[in-house]
Amino acid sequence: MGRWPAGAQERLQEAAIELFTERGYERTTVAEIAKRAGLTERTFYNHFADKREVLFPDQDRFIAEIREAVGAAPAEQSPLDAVLAAFTATSDWFDQRRDASQRRRHILDAHTDLRERERAKMAALGEAIADALRTRGIYDPAATLTATVSVAAYQLASARWLADPQHATLGHHLHTSFDDLHRTASTW
Amino acid sequence: MGRWPAGAQERLQEAAIELFTERGYERTTVAEIAKRAGLTERTFYNHFADKREVLFPDQDRFIAEIREAVGAAPAEQSPLDAVLAAFTATSDWFDQRRDASQRRRHILDAHTDLRERERAKMAALGEAIADALRTRGIYDPAATLTATVSVAAYQLASARWLADPQHATLGHHLHTSFDDLHRTASTW
Repeated sequence: MGRWPAGAQERLQEAAIELFTERGYERTTVAEIAKRAGLTERTFYNHFADKREVLFPDQDRFIAEIREAVGAAPAEQSPLDAVLAAFTATSDWFDQRRDASQRRRHILDAHTDLRERERAKMAALGEAIADALRTRGIYDPAATLTATVSVAAYQLASARWLADPQHATLGHHLHTSFDDLHRTASTW
Repeated sequence: MGRWPAGAQERLQEAAIELFTERGYERTTVAEIAKRAGLTERTFYNHFADKREVLFPDQDRFIAEIREAVGAAPAEQSPLDAVLAAFTATSDWFDQRRDASQRRRHILDAHTDLRERERAKMAALGEAIADALRTRGIYDPAATLTATVSVAAYQLASARWLADPQHATLGHHLHTSFDDLHRTASTW
């Protein structure tokens, strides 16, 4: 990554969220995002495949970290506890980016094609969790079902975190949401 | 629907699956699908918004039926049993279309944009189930979590049904998959 200016990805993402909020997602071009960040269009495309991807900047790394943490969790942890611990380990990073996450959420909610991309990312997250569960000796269908419901609990926690007027941490909302999942499963 | 030729939608879908299988999804045009079905391009667009939609011909009706059946299920049924009964009530319709469903599945699996569209349809199915559960006095987050896991169990059943060399019914695979879900949830 040495040939790119330090922090280029973060600057592009911040510029994109600013511009999408100011003048709308459709009306903002990649050239304008690059200009606002003080970078070239070419640098943008070195980091992101298209305009949509600038709103999912760290998803691959996030998914890789979750996969690794689930695989490395203590053997005595239940599948859901292992996934909860993996999500919780990444939650400080999100808490430091709460405002930008909130603006990003508003943009995603307003655009069908962005929500489609988000669903694809969440499906990839679920597949990574299912893979990691298989390395723990949990086989299908349990791996896929557990991974799918884990992603649903994660999305619930994330939505509550962004909507919370008290600004409780994402870690707090993760624990609450996984508790809700346990309670809900007992009614099935 | 009176002004359209009887069965136009079914003929267009059969023609599309034939052509997609013969020469590929990308290389088939809407005009060719209409011609193979003995209809006009205009009739195609009276039935389907775009080429992708011809592979999801009855999804709105299916989703509406599931929503209604979940809402109308006996009050004493558990949430998952109500959803299982709703899916089972539609399963004969699918069993009568097993071969076409299998060809359709191969086409979807080979194309990212079709799988994206399918994810959007499955998300809509989940939202309809969550709505119906709310009419039964099951509120969020339980409604959303239960709906999400129901859709996962349904997709599991559908995949097993299409892959089953014994050709057991979709109803059989629905029951097996929901049993697996209960067993899996007990390990969480």
